[in-house]
Amino acid sequence: MALIVQKYGGTSVGSTDRIKNVARRVAKHKAQGHDLVVVLSAMSGETNRLIGLAKEIQANPDPRELDVIVSTGEQVTIGLLVMALKELGIEAVSYTGGQVKILTDSSHTKARIQHIDDANMRADLNAGKVVVVAGFQGVDANGNITTLGRGGSDTSGVALAAALKADECQIYTDVDGVYTTDPRVVPEAKKLKTITFEEMLEMASLGSKILQIRSVEFAGKYNVKLRVLSSFQEEGEGTLITFEEDSTVEKPVISGIAFNRDEARVNVIGVPDKPGIAYQILGPIADANIDVDMIIQNVGQDGTTDFSFTVPKGELARTVKVLEGVQAQIGGKSVSGDDKICKVSIVGVGMRSHVGVASTMFRTLAEEGINIQMISTSEIKISVVLDEKYLELAVRVLHKAFGLDRVA
Amino acid sequence: MALIVQKYGGTSVGSTDRIKNVARRVAKHKAQGHDLVVVLSAMSGETNRLIGLAKEIQANPDPRELDVIVSTGEQVTIGLLVMALKELGIEAVSYTGGQVKILTDSSHTKARIQHIDDANMRADLNAGKVVVVAGFQGVDANGNITTLGRGGSDTSGVALAAALKADECQIYTDVDGVYTTDPRVVPEAKKLKTITFEEMLEMASLGSKILQIRSVEFAGKYNVKLRVLSSFQEEGEGTLITFEEDSTVEKPVISGIAFNRDEARVNVIGVPDKPGIAYQILGPIADANIDVDMIIQNVGQDGTTDFSFTVPKGELARTVKVLEGVQAQIGGKSVSGDDKICKVSIVGVGMRSHVGVASTMFRTLAEEGINIQMISTSEIKISVVLDEKYLELAVRVLHKAFGLDRVA
Repeated sequence: MALIVQKYGGTSVGSTDRIKNVARRVAKHKAQGHDLVVVLSAMSGETNRLIGLAKEIQANPDPRELDVIVSTGEQVTIGLLVMALKELGIEAVSYTGGQVKILTDSSHTKARIQHIDDANMRADLNAGKVVVVAGFQGVDANGNITTLGRGGSDTSGVALAAALKADECQIYTDVDGVYTTDPRVVPEAKKLKTITFEEMLEMASLGSKILQIRSVEFAGKYNVKLRVLSSFQEEGEGTLITFEEDSTVEKPVISGIAFNRDEARVNVIGVPDKPGIAYQILGPIADANIDVDMIIQNVGQDGTTDFSFTVPKGELARTVKVLEGVQAQIGGKSVSGDDKICKVSIVGVGMRSHVGVASTMFRTLAEEGINIQMISTSEIKISVVLDEKYLELAVRVLHKAFGLDRVA
Repeated sequence: MALIVQKYGGTSVGSTDRIKNVARRVAKHKAQGHDLVVVLSAMSGETNRLIGLAKEIQANPDPRELDVIVSTGEQVTIGLLVMALKELGIEAVSYTGGQVKILTDSSHTKARIQHIDDANMRADLNAGKVVVVAGFQGVDANGNITTLGRGGSDTSGVALAAALKADECQIYTDVDGVYTTDPRVVPEAKKLKTITFEEMLEMASLGSKILQIRSVEFAGKYNVKLRVLSSFQEEGEGTLITFEEDSTVEKPVISGIAFNRDEARVNVIGVPDKPGIAYQILGPIADANIDVDMIIQNVGQDGTTDFSFTVPKGELARTVKVLEGVQAQIGGKSVSGDDKICKVSIVGVGMRSHVGVASTMFRTLAEEGINIQMISTSEIKISVVLDEKYLELAVRVLHKAFGLDRVA
């Protein structure tokens, strides 16, 4: 008998029929003798509907009141699931974030969990009840309703698993696990049985939208065993996110290939090659609240250098405008932007102990005539920026080159 | 400068545009220097939508979880109104029932308010803020979300006015006051400037659906000055509900005429005329949880009597079935039902001091050839049951006979 936290996302509870399916799955695990805490998102589309109402009134909705409004989405689904469980003869009880209580800081719309009171949940579990908790939400020290930001229900699930010292946190979603890459791009993509936390972090932050990145960090920090499963398949072990590289199994050097179509490249040409130039360029960008991803600066020649970085596509125009405003001050020759790019990354803890991974990547791309615009590396990841028309081709040939289509 | 509690119903907040209208009205009162606490219902249709979702899962939804779900309707509107007020530059803050907190008993879906903590609201009012509270909901001593039953937002408004010792509780609705009768039936119906609490209670319980009857009782009990106004008209004083008959003004004996199409009559013929027979008949009805309204028992002849009462139309079939089941035991000759009836009532504290009110009523109906099936009286009300086809005619001739079309 184990204590399991199960988190179901918006599509898994998108209709009353789907909620009944979730109830049946919970009932099955309960019948196996497990204690269960279930964390739910709002019905798919509901959070957007509520934000839409708010925006009809305020273009930039007041954060405190927005939290009051959007937190209702999860409050509806927890009530519905408890009803569905009772229809199956299973005792259950629902809790809002405030009722648990899940204490957060006061950063409305992006609050961080500070503490979880497990007393009520423990009492209910001991009484044989299934505990159903609203994801995505908490309450601050003054009793104000807070939310954790998009995808925050994953974080709620992991935080509850940590607080309850659960044996496993299962994230049910509309995919049946983590794949070597997006199967829509490479049909030969294979489901991974395991992936390490570090790899998952790189995959998540590089555009694999399976898990909210904060929930993965949280799970790593508190040693929560995390598993991604499909809520639409009856069987299947999903993908287990592990703490250590599984050394007993022969694995490919690379675990997966992530990609991102949503970035644009900015070039600042001919800036003086002197200390402080990076700050002079990126300071105004940060002040304008624009997220910067890859940053490349080459060794300069003739006392000048070129500086490049990527921003979200939607921010490109604003970024260029900000830089043009400070160009005279910086002393650069020109500022240009390109939104017809993509980023492709290979991820794997295996590259730590294998030489030649980078050269395999670059050779594979060169053989297809694909020009690399930017390169950025971390200990377990190599990212390249390419012309966006090459995205599918690049992912496909890299997938094959690293033997990912042969993953067991 | 006064402290005013304003309550807006579902149609008044039925869209974001209407919520903006409410904000403008609140702003106007605020600009006049008043302190304002605003109580809101859910957007019209929303509570029914939520109940519909619950019923897709449970035919008889679990009461605790139903309260968790339906209480979200008001939680959305309070957030939206605060946003609309902020757009107008007015500081405001929202509270759910639990945040106030409005402490109730644990009778889910029909909870009663036990205590209201006014500390937070007072602090906000003192800081110049408009306080926006979710109607219809509260929280029990264990932190469970409760609701007050249909129309409970009126009760929330009155209870908050009582707790805050507000100068006035204004109920904004889709009518602009209390009328002598329904203007759709009698175009000459006049709006009343004042009506006494007793009269309003009789009007409310007799089918004038302007105010929830519990809110009127509550207002009477705690001496809350209650006013009904239209949220769709810019001007107008509405109808003030007063504690005492206004003796300085010459008023008609009768204040208004109420009617109800939703009752059915049940006759139990030839039951033994002996002590305990009323209980023998009505006991099983109460056990079946059927509301009984008018009850008539005549002096019997030949040792038997006829017993009649009214129930909601939708309960007639079940009522007859219950009685047929106990008929042998009761010893009655027959049980019959008639759902083609209506109830018409004249209401007025003036009838206490005026003789001949009943005879005027009966003569007026007789002159039109309308047969009276049942009569029931209280100190300030006379109700008759008629064939339902006579409803409009009866209301119209009574309205004229008692001079209600000449109300100033």
